[in-house]
Amino acid sequence: MYPKPVQVLIDELGRLPGVGPKSAQRIAFHLLAVDADEAERLVDAVRDVKENVRPCPRCCNVTDVTYPACESEGGTLCTAGRRDPTLLCVVEEPRDVVAIERTHEFQGRYHVLGGALNPLEGMGADQLHIRELLDRLSGEGIREVIVCTNPNIEGEATAMYLAKLLRERGVRVTRPASGLPVGGDLEYADEVTLGRALEGRRDVDDRHGTGPSPASF
Amino acid sequence: MYPKPVQVLIDELGRLPGVGPKSAQRIAFHLLAVDADEAERLVDAVRDVKENVRPCPRCCNVTDVTYPACESEGGTLCTAGRRDPTLLCVVEEPRDVVAIERTHEFQGRYHVLGGALNPLEGMGADQLHIRELLDRLSGEGIREVIVCTNPNIEGEATAMYLAKLLRERGVRVTRPASGLPVGGDLEYADEVTLGRALEGRRDVDDRHGTGPSPASF
Repeated sequence: MYPKPVQVLIDELGRLPGVGPKSAQRIAFHLLAVDADEAERLVDAVRDVKENVRPCPRCCNVTDVTYPACESEGGTLCTAGRRDPTLLCVVEEPRDVVAIERTHEFQGRYHVLGGALNPLEGMGADQLHIRELLDRLSGEGIREVIVCTNPNIEGEATAMYLAKLLRERGVRVTRPASGLPVGGDLEYADEVTLGRALEGRRDVDDRHGTGPSPASF
Repeated sequence: MYPKPVQVLIDELGRLPGVGPKSAQRIAFHLLAVDADEAERLVDAVRDVKENVRPCPRCCNVTDVTYPACESEGGTLCTAGRRDPTLLCVVEEPRDVVAIERTHEFQGRYHVLGGALNPLEGMGADQLHIRELLDRLSGEGIREVIVCTNPNIEGEATAMYLAKLLRERGVRVTRPASGLPVGGDLEYADEVTLGRALEGRRDVDDRHGTGPSPASF
Protein backbone atom coordinates (compact mmCIF):
# COMPACT_ATOMS: atom_id res chain seq x y z
CA MET A 1 0.00 0.00 0.00
CA TYR A 2 2.87 2.35 0.82
CA PRO A 3 5.71 2.96 -1.64
CA LYS A 4 8.20 0.12 -1.34
CA PRO A 5 10.98 2.06 0.51
CA VAL A 6 8.46 3.20 3.14
CA GLN A 7 7.11 -0.33 3.60
CA VAL A 8 10.63 -1.75 3.87
CA LEU A 9 11.50 0.83 6.54
CA ILE A 10 8.31 0.07 8.48
CA ASP A 11 9.15 -3.65 8.35
CA GLU A 12 12.74 -3.08 9.52
CA LEU A 13 11.65 -0.79 12.36
CA GLY A 14 9.03 -3.38 13.35
CA ARG A 15 11.82 -5.87 14.05
CA LEU A 16 13.22 -3.71 16.84
CA PRO A 17 12.29 -4.75 20.38
CA GLY A 18 9.22 -2.98 21.75
CA VAL A 19 8.31 -1.44 18.38
CA GLY A 20 4.93 -2.64 17.13
CA PRO A 21 3.46 -2.08 13.64
CA LYS A 22 1.80 1.22 14.60
CA SER A 23 4.95 2.61 16.24
CA ALA A 24 7.02 1.46 13.27
CA GLN A 25 4.70 3.35 10.93
CA ARG A 26 4.82 6.43 13.13
CA ILE A 27 8.62 6.37 13.32
CA ALA A 28 8.91 5.80 9.55
CA PHE A 29 6.79 8.86 8.79
CA HIS A 30 8.73 10.84 11.37
CA LEU A 31 11.98 9.92 9.60
CA LEU A 32 10.40 10.82 6.28
CA ALA A 33 9.49 14.25 7.65
CA VAL A 34 12.72 15.22 9.43
CA ASP A 35 15.72 16.94 7.83
CA ALA A 36 18.09 14.72 5.88
CA ASP A 37 20.73 15.63 8.48
CA GLU A 38 18.73 14.24 11.37
CA ALA A 39 18.08 10.94 9.59
CA GLU A 40 21.75 10.80 8.66
CA ARG A 41 22.74 11.25 12.31
CA LEU A 42 20.69 8.16 13.21
CA VAL A 43 22.22 6.18 10.35
CA ASP A 44 25.72 7.22 11.41
CA ALA A 45 25.01 6.34 15.03
CA VAL A 46 23.92 2.82 14.09
CA ARG A 47 26.97 2.35 11.85
CA ASP A 48 29.34 3.75 14.47
CA VAL A 49 28.06 1.34 17.09
CA LYS A 50 28.34 -1.64 14.76
CA GLU A 51 31.85 -0.68 13.66
CA ASN A 52 33.40 0.69 16.82
CA VAL A 53 31.84 -1.01 19.81
CA ARG A 54 33.02 -4.43 20.95
CA PRO A 55 32.97 -6.38 24.21
CA CYS A 56 36.11 -5.70 26.24
CA PRO A 57 38.19 -8.94 26.16
CA ARG A 58 38.72 -8.65 29.91
CA CYS A 59 35.47 -7.45 31.56
CA CYS A 60 33.16 -8.23 28.59
CA ASN A 61 31.44 -4.85 29.01
CA VAL A 62 30.81 -2.83 25.83
CA THR A 63 33.86 -0.82 24.82
CA ASP A 64 34.69 1.75 22.19
CA VAL A 65 37.47 0.29 20.04
CA THR A 66 38.54 3.75 18.90
CA TYR A 67 39.38 4.52 22.53
CA PRO A 68 41.22 1.45 23.82
CA ALA A 69 40.48 2.27 27.43
CA CYS A 70 40.66 -1.30 28.65
CA GLU A 71 44.33 -1.48 27.76
CA SER A 72 45.30 1.64 29.71
CA GLU A 73 44.75 3.05 33.17
CA GLY A 74 42.71 5.85 31.64
CA GLY A 75 39.28 5.88 33.21
CA THR A 76 37.81 2.56 32.22
CA LEU A 77 35.68 0.77 34.76
CA CYS A 78 37.56 -2.49 34.49
CA THR A 79 41.12 -1.31 34.99
CA ALA A 80 41.00 2.25 36.37
CA GLY A 81 43.62 2.62 39.08
CA ARG A 82 41.36 4.20 41.67
CA ARG A 83 39.07 1.16 41.70
CA ASP A 84 39.52 -1.69 44.17
CA PRO A 85 41.01 -4.59 42.19
CA THR A 86 40.11 -7.18 44.85
CA LEU A 87 36.35 -6.63 44.62
CA LEU A 88 34.50 -7.77 41.49
CA CYS A 89 30.81 -7.23 40.70
CA VAL A 90 29.34 -9.73 38.22
CA VAL A 91 26.29 -8.50 36.29
CA GLU A 92 24.19 -9.81 33.42
CA GLU A 93 24.22 -6.85 31.02
CA PRO A 94 26.09 -3.58 30.38
CA ARG A 95 22.99 -1.64 31.48
CA ASP A 96 23.36 -3.22 34.94
CA VAL A 97 26.83 -1.66 35.22
CA VAL A 98 25.24 1.73 34.57
CA ALA A 99 22.52 1.07 37.17
CA ILE A 100 25.10 0.17 39.83
CA GLU A 101 27.39 3.08 38.95
CA ARG A 102 24.44 5.43 39.53
CA THR A 103 24.34 4.37 43.20
CA HIS A 104 27.94 5.60 43.76
CA GLU A 105 28.17 2.78 46.33
CA PHE A 106 30.48 0.43 44.49
CA GLN A 107 34.21 1.06 44.14
CA GLY A 108 35.32 -2.27 42.71
CA ARG A 109 35.42 -3.55 39.14
CA TYR A 110 32.84 -5.23 36.93
CA HIS A 111 32.41 -8.35 34.89
CA VAL A 112 29.54 -8.63 32.39
CA LEU A 113 28.19 -12.14 31.80
CA GLY A 114 26.16 -11.26 28.73
CA GLY A 115 22.96 -12.80 30.10
CA ALA A 116 21.79 -15.38 32.61
CA LEU A 117 21.44 -19.15 32.50
CA ASN A 118 18.25 -19.97 30.64
CA PRO A 119 18.30 -23.46 29.10
CA LEU A 120 14.91 -22.97 27.41
CA GLU A 121 16.34 -20.08 25.39
CA GLY A 122 19.62 -21.84 24.72
CA MET A 123 21.63 -19.82 27.24
CA GLY A 124 23.97 -22.30 28.90
CA ALA A 125 27.18 -21.69 30.83
CA ASP A 126 29.15 -21.73 27.56
CA GLN A 127 27.13 -18.81 26.17
CA LEU A 128 28.01 -16.62 29.17
CA HIS A 129 31.40 -14.97 29.75
CA ILE A 130 32.27 -17.34 32.60
CA ARG A 131 35.60 -18.51 31.19
CA GLU A 132 36.75 -14.87 31.09
CA LEU A 133 35.60 -14.49 34.70
CA LEU A 134 37.64 -17.48 35.85
CA ASP A 135 40.68 -16.12 33.96
CA ARG A 136 40.38 -12.87 35.90
CA LEU A 137 40.12 -14.67 39.24
CA SER A 138 43.55 -16.18 38.84
CA GLY A 139 45.20 -13.07 37.41
CA GLU A 140 43.79 -10.11 39.34
CA GLY A 141 43.97 -11.05 43.01
CA ILE A 142 40.20 -10.89 43.47
CA ARG A 143 39.05 -11.69 47.02
CA GLU A 144 35.29 -11.10 46.81
CA VAL A 145 32.80 -11.52 43.96
CA ILE A 146 29.39 -9.84 44.33
CA VAL A 147 27.08 -11.80 42.05
CA CYS A 148 24.68 -9.04 41.09
CA THR A 149 22.47 -10.94 38.61
CA ASN A 150 18.77 -10.12 38.51
CA PRO A 151 16.63 -11.33 41.45
CA ASN A 152 14.52 -13.57 39.18
CA ILE A 153 14.64 -17.30 38.44
CA GLU A 154 17.35 -17.12 35.77
CA GLY A 155 19.44 -14.66 37.75
CA GLU A 156 19.21 -16.72 40.94
CA ALA A 157 20.11 -19.92 39.10
CA THR A 158 23.11 -18.17 37.57
CA ALA A 159 24.16 -16.90 40.99
CA MET A 160 23.94 -20.41 42.50
CA TYR A 161 25.98 -21.83 39.63
CA LEU A 162 28.66 -19.14 39.90
CA ALA A 163 28.78 -19.34 43.71
CA LYS A 164 29.67 -23.04 43.54
CA LEU A 165 32.28 -22.45 40.85
CA LEU A 166 33.88 -19.48 42.61
CA ARG A 167 33.90 -20.85 46.17
CA GLU A 168 35.85 -23.86 44.92
CA ARG A 169 38.54 -21.33 44.00
CA GLY A 170 38.62 -19.86 47.49
CA VAL A 171 36.85 -16.58 46.71
CA ARG A 172 34.20 -15.02 48.95
CA VAL A 173 30.92 -14.91 47.00
CA THR A 174 28.10 -12.52 48.00
CA ARG A 175 24.69 -11.49 46.67
CA PRO A 176 23.10 -8.06 47.19
CA ALA A 177 20.41 -8.06 49.90
CA SER A 178 16.85 -8.95 49.01
CA GLY A 179 14.26 -6.91 50.85
CA LEU A 180 11.74 -4.12 50.77
CA PRO A 181 12.38 -1.43 48.16
CA VAL A 182 13.03 1.96 49.75
CA GLY A 183 9.94 4.15 49.56
CA GLY A 184 7.76 1.05 49.13
CA ASP A 185 4.72 0.07 51.11
CA LEU A 186 4.77 -2.99 53.40
CA GLU A 187 1.18 -3.74 52.49
CA TYR A 188 1.99 -4.16 48.81
CA ALA A 189 5.18 -6.22 49.17
CA ASP A 190 4.86 -9.79 47.89
CA GLU A 191 5.31 -12.63 50.40
CA VAL A 192 8.66 -13.77 49.03
CA THR A 193 10.16 -10.28 49.21
CA LEU A 194 8.75 -9.63 52.68
CA GLY A 195 9.93 -13.05 53.85
CA ARG A 196 13.43 -12.34 52.58
CA ALA A 197 13.37 -8.90 54.20
CA LEU A 198 12.51 -10.46 57.58
CA GLU A 199 15.06 -13.23 57.16
CA GLY A 200 17.75 -10.67 56.31
CA ARG A 201 16.82 -8.26 59.11
CA ARG A 202 19.59 -6.13 60.53
CA ASP A 203 20.30 -4.49 63.85
CA VAL A 204 19.22 -0.88 63.89
CA ASP A 205 22.40 1.16 63.95
CA ASP A 206 21.86 4.73 65.13
CA ARG A 207 25.17 5.90 63.81
CA HIS A 208 24.22 5.27 60.18
CA GLY A 209 20.48 5.83 60.52
CA THR A 210 18.87 8.28 58.13
CA GLY A 211 15.66 8.85 60.14
CA PRO A 212 15.13 11.44 62.84
CA SER A 213 16.93 10.71 66.10
CA PRO A 214 14.79 10.28 69.28
CA ALA A 215 16.08 13.67 70.46
CA SER A 216 14.22 15.37 67.64
CA PHE A 217 10.81 14.31 68.97
CA MET B 1 28.62 5.93 31.36
CA TYR B 2 28.33 3.96 28.13
CA PRO B 3 31.00 4.17 25.42
CA LYS B 4 30.37 7.28 23.34
CA PRO B 5 28.99 5.55 20.20
CA VAL B 6 26.45 3.65 22.33
CA GLN B 7 25.37 6.82 24.14
CA VAL B 8 25.05 8.71 20.85
CA LEU B 9 22.87 5.93 19.42
CA ILE B 10 20.67 5.89 22.55
CA ASP B 11 20.26 9.67 22.26
CA GLU B 12 19.38 9.50 18.57
CA LEU B 13 16.88 6.67 19.10
CA GLY B 14 15.36 8.64 21.99
CA ARG B 15 14.43 11.43 19.54
CA LEU B 16 12.09 9.11 17.65
CA PRO B 17 8.40 9.47 18.47
CA GLY B 18 7.16 7.05 21.12
CA VAL B 19 10.68 5.90 22.06
CA GLY B 20 11.56 6.76 25.66
CA PRO B 21 15.01 6.49 27.29
CA LYS B 22 14.50 2.86 28.36
CA SER B 23 13.26 1.76 24.92
CA ALA B 24 16.11 3.64 23.27
CA GLN B 25 18.60 1.77 25.45
CA ARG B 26 16.93 -1.54 24.72
CA ILE B 27 16.92 -0.91 20.95
CA ALA B 28 20.56 0.24 21.03
CA PHE B 29 21.70 -2.97 22.74
CA HIS B 30 19.54 -4.98 20.34
CA LEU B 31 21.30 -3.31 17.40
CA LEU B 32 24.63 -3.93 19.07
CA ALA B 33 23.80 -7.64 19.38
CA VAL B 34 22.34 -8.35 15.90
CA ASP B 35 24.34 -9.32 12.81
CA ALA B 36 26.01 -6.49 10.95
CA ASP B 37 23.71 -7.35 8.02
CA GLU B 38 20.56 -6.74 9.98
CA ALA B 39 21.76 -3.36 11.24
CA GLU B 40 22.83 -2.49 7.71
CA ARG B 41 19.34 -3.32 6.41
CA LEU B 42 17.87 -0.77 8.82
CA VAL B 43 20.46 1.82 7.80
CA ASP B 44 19.74 1.20 4.12
CA ALA B 45 16.00 1.41 4.69
CA VAL B 46 16.33 4.82 6.37
CA ARG B 47 18.61 6.08 3.59
CA ASP B 48 16.36 4.70 0.84
CA VAL B 49 13.33 6.48 2.28
CA LYS B 50 15.21 9.78 2.61
CA GLU B 51 16.60 9.54 -0.91
CA ASN B 52 13.79 7.99 -2.87
CA VAL B 53 10.49 8.97 -1.29
CA ARG B 54 8.89 12.33 -2.04
CA PRO B 55 5.39 13.75 -1.92
CA CYS B 56 3.64 13.30 -5.27
CA PRO B 57 3.32 16.78 -6.81
CA ARG B 58 -0.28 16.04 -7.68
CA CYS B 59 -1.89 14.14 -4.78
CA CYS B 60 0.79 14.97 -2.15
CA ASN B 61 0.80 11.34 -0.98
CA VAL B 62 4.23 9.72 -0.44
CA THR B 63 5.68 8.39 -3.68
CA ASP B 64 8.70 6.39 -4.68
CA VAL B 65 10.73 8.56 -7.06
CA THR B 66 12.45 5.51 -8.55
CA TYR B 67 9.02 4.35 -9.74
CA PRO B 68 7.37 7.46 -11.16
CA ALA B 69 3.90 6.04 -10.76
CA CYS B 70 2.12 9.33 -10.57
CA GLU B 71 3.14 10.16 -14.13
CA SER B 72 1.82 6.95 -15.62
CA GLU B 73 -1.37 4.93 -15.57
CA GLY B 74 0.45 2.16 -13.80
CA GLY B 75 -1.23 1.42 -10.55
CA THR B 76 -0.89 4.62 -8.61
CA LEU B 77 -3.77 5.66 -6.42
CA CYS B 78 -3.93 9.18 -7.77
CA THR B 79 -4.06 8.50 -11.50
CA ALA B 80 -4.88 4.80 -11.99
CA GLY B 81 -7.31 4.43 -14.88
CA ARG B 82 -9.77 2.18 -13.06
CA ARG B 83 -10.39 4.79 -10.36
CA ASP B 84 -13.23 7.30 -10.58
CA PRO B 85 -11.64 10.66 -11.45
CA THR B 86 -14.71 12.66 -10.38
CA LEU B 87 -14.60 11.57 -6.73
CA LEU B 88 -11.79 12.86 -4.50
CA CYS B 89 -11.11 11.87 -0.91
CA VAL B 90 -9.13 14.44 1.11
CA VAL B 91 -7.20 13.03 4.07
CA GLU B 92 -4.66 14.39 6.56
CA GLU B 93 -1.84 11.84 6.27
CA PRO B 94 -0.61 9.03 3.99
CA ARG B 95 -1.56 6.49 6.67
CA ASP B 96 -5.19 7.60 6.29
CA VAL B 97 -5.05 6.58 2.62
CA VAL B 98 -3.96 3.12 3.74
CA ALA B 99 -6.76 2.96 6.32
CA ILE B 100 -9.38 3.86 3.72
CA GLU B 101 -7.95 1.50 1.10
CA ARG B 102 -8.32 -1.35 3.60
CA THR B 103 -12.10 -0.86 3.60
CA HIS B 104 -12.27 -1.58 -0.18
CA GLU B 105 -15.23 0.84 -0.19
CA PHE B 106 -13.68 3.77 -1.98
CA GLN B 107 -13.04 3.80 -5.72
CA GLY B 108 -12.10 7.43 -6.23
CA ARG B 109 -8.76 9.20 -5.84
CA TYR B 110 -6.99 10.76 -2.90
CA HIS B 111 -5.48 14.05 -1.86
CA VAL B 112 -3.21 14.24 1.18
CA LEU B 113 -3.25 17.55 3.07
CA GLY B 114 -0.17 16.80 5.18
CA GLY B 115 -1.92 17.59 8.46
CA ALA B 116 -4.86 19.58 9.81
CA LEU B 117 -5.35 23.23 10.72
CA ASN B 118 -3.81 23.79 14.15
CA PRO B 119 -2.83 27.43 14.71
CA LEU B 120 -1.27 26.67 18.09
CA GLU B 121 1.25 24.36 16.42
CA GLY B 122 1.81 26.68 13.50
CA MET B 123 -0.27 24.66 11.01
CA GLY B 124 -2.15 27.22 8.96
CA ALA B 125 -3.80 26.85 5.56
CA ASP B 126 -0.47 27.66 3.86
CA GLN B 127 1.24 24.69 5.54
CA LEU B 128 -1.33 22.24 4.13
CA HIS B 129 -1.48 21.10 0.50
CA ILE B 130 -4.60 23.14 -0.22
CA ARG B 131 -3.23 24.98 -3.23
CA GLU B 132 -2.52 21.63 -4.90
CA LEU B 133 -6.07 20.55 -4.08
CA LEU B 134 -7.56 23.64 -5.74
CA ASP B 135 -5.33 23.07 -8.79
CA ARG B 136 -6.74 19.57 -9.11
CA LEU B 137 -10.32 20.81 -8.85
CA SER B 138 -10.00 22.88 -11.98
CA GLY B 139 -8.02 20.30 -13.96
CA GLU B 140 -9.53 16.91 -13.14
CA GLY B 141 -13.29 17.34 -13.48
CA ILE B 142 -13.90 16.51 -9.81
CA ARG B 143 -17.59 16.58 -8.82
CA GLU B 144 -17.49 15.45 -5.20
CA VAL B 145 -14.88 15.90 -2.48
CA ILE B 146 -15.16 13.67 0.61
CA VAL B 147 -13.34 15.56 3.37
CA CYS B 148 -12.09 12.62 5.39
CA THR B 149 -10.06 14.48 8.04
CA ASN B 150 -10.02 13.11 11.57
CA PRO B 151 -13.21 13.54 13.64
CA ASN B 152 -11.42 15.72 16.22
CA ILE B 153 -11.27 19.50 16.72
CA GLU B 154 -8.47 20.12 14.21
CA GLY B 155 -9.93 17.76 11.64
CA GLU B 156 -13.42 19.28 11.93
CA ALA B 157 -12.04 22.81 11.66
CA THR B 158 -10.10 21.79 8.55
CA ALA B 159 -13.23 20.22 7.09
CA MET B 160 -15.26 23.38 7.71
CA TYR B 161 -12.55 25.51 6.11
CA LEU B 162 -12.28 23.27 3.06
CA ALA B 163 -16.05 22.94 2.70
CA LYS B 164 -16.41 26.72 2.37
CA LEU B 165 -13.51 26.93 -0.09
CA LEU B 166 -14.72 24.04 -2.25
CA ARG B 167 -18.43 24.87 -2.31
CA GLU B 168 -17.56 28.29 -3.72
CA ARG B 169 -16.13 26.39 -6.68
CA GLY B 170 -19.34 24.45 -7.24
CA VAL B 171 -18.15 21.09 -5.91
CA ARG B 172 -20.24 18.81 -3.70
CA VAL B 173 -18.48 18.49 -0.32
CA THR B 174 -19.26 15.56 2.01
CA ARG B 175 -17.98 14.21 5.33
CA PRO B 176 -18.04 10.53 6.35
CA ALA B 177 -20.85 9.73 8.79
CA SER B 178 -20.30 10.16 12.50
CA GLY B 179 -21.93 7.47 14.61
CA LEU B 180 -21.54 4.38 16.69
CA PRO B 181 -18.52 2.23 15.85
CA VAL B 182 -19.55 -1.22 14.61
CA GLY B 183 -19.15 -3.78 17.38
CA GLY B 184 -19.33 -1.02 19.99
CA ASP B 185 -21.59 -0.78 22.99
CA LEU B 186 -24.31 1.86 23.20
CA GLU B 187 -23.71 2.19 26.92
CA TYR B 188 -20.11 3.26 26.46
CA ALA B 189 -20.63 5.68 23.58
CA ASP B 190 -19.94 9.31 24.52
CA GLU B 191 -22.82 11.79 24.29
CA VAL B 192 -21.49 13.61 21.25
CA THR B 193 -21.06 10.40 19.25
CA LEU B 194 -24.44 9.04 20.31
CA GLY B 195 -26.06 12.41 19.54
CA ARG B 196 -24.51 12.43 16.07
CA ALA B 197 -25.57 8.82 15.52
CA LEU B 198 -29.17 9.71 16.33
CA GLU B 199 -29.06 12.87 14.26
CA GLY B 200 -27.70 10.92 11.30
CA ARG B 201 -30.11 7.98 11.66
CA ARG B 202 -31.02 6.14 8.49
CA ASP B 203 -34.02 4.16 7.31
CA VAL B 204 -33.51 0.47 7.85
CA ASP B 205 -33.03 -1.04 4.41
CA ASP B 206 -33.54 -4.79 4.34
CA ARG B 207 -31.81 -5.19 1.00
CA HIS B 208 -28.42 -4.11 2.29
CA GLY B 209 -28.85 -5.30 5.83
CA THR B 210 -26.10 -7.54 7.18
CA GLY B 211 -28.09 -8.94 10.11
CA PRO B 212 -30.25 -12.07 10.04
CA SER B 213 -33.50 -11.65 8.09
CA PRO B 214 -36.78 -12.08 10.01
CA ALA B 215 -37.27 -15.39 8.20
CA SER B 216 -34.24 -16.82 9.96
CA PHE B 217 -35.91 -16.62 13.40
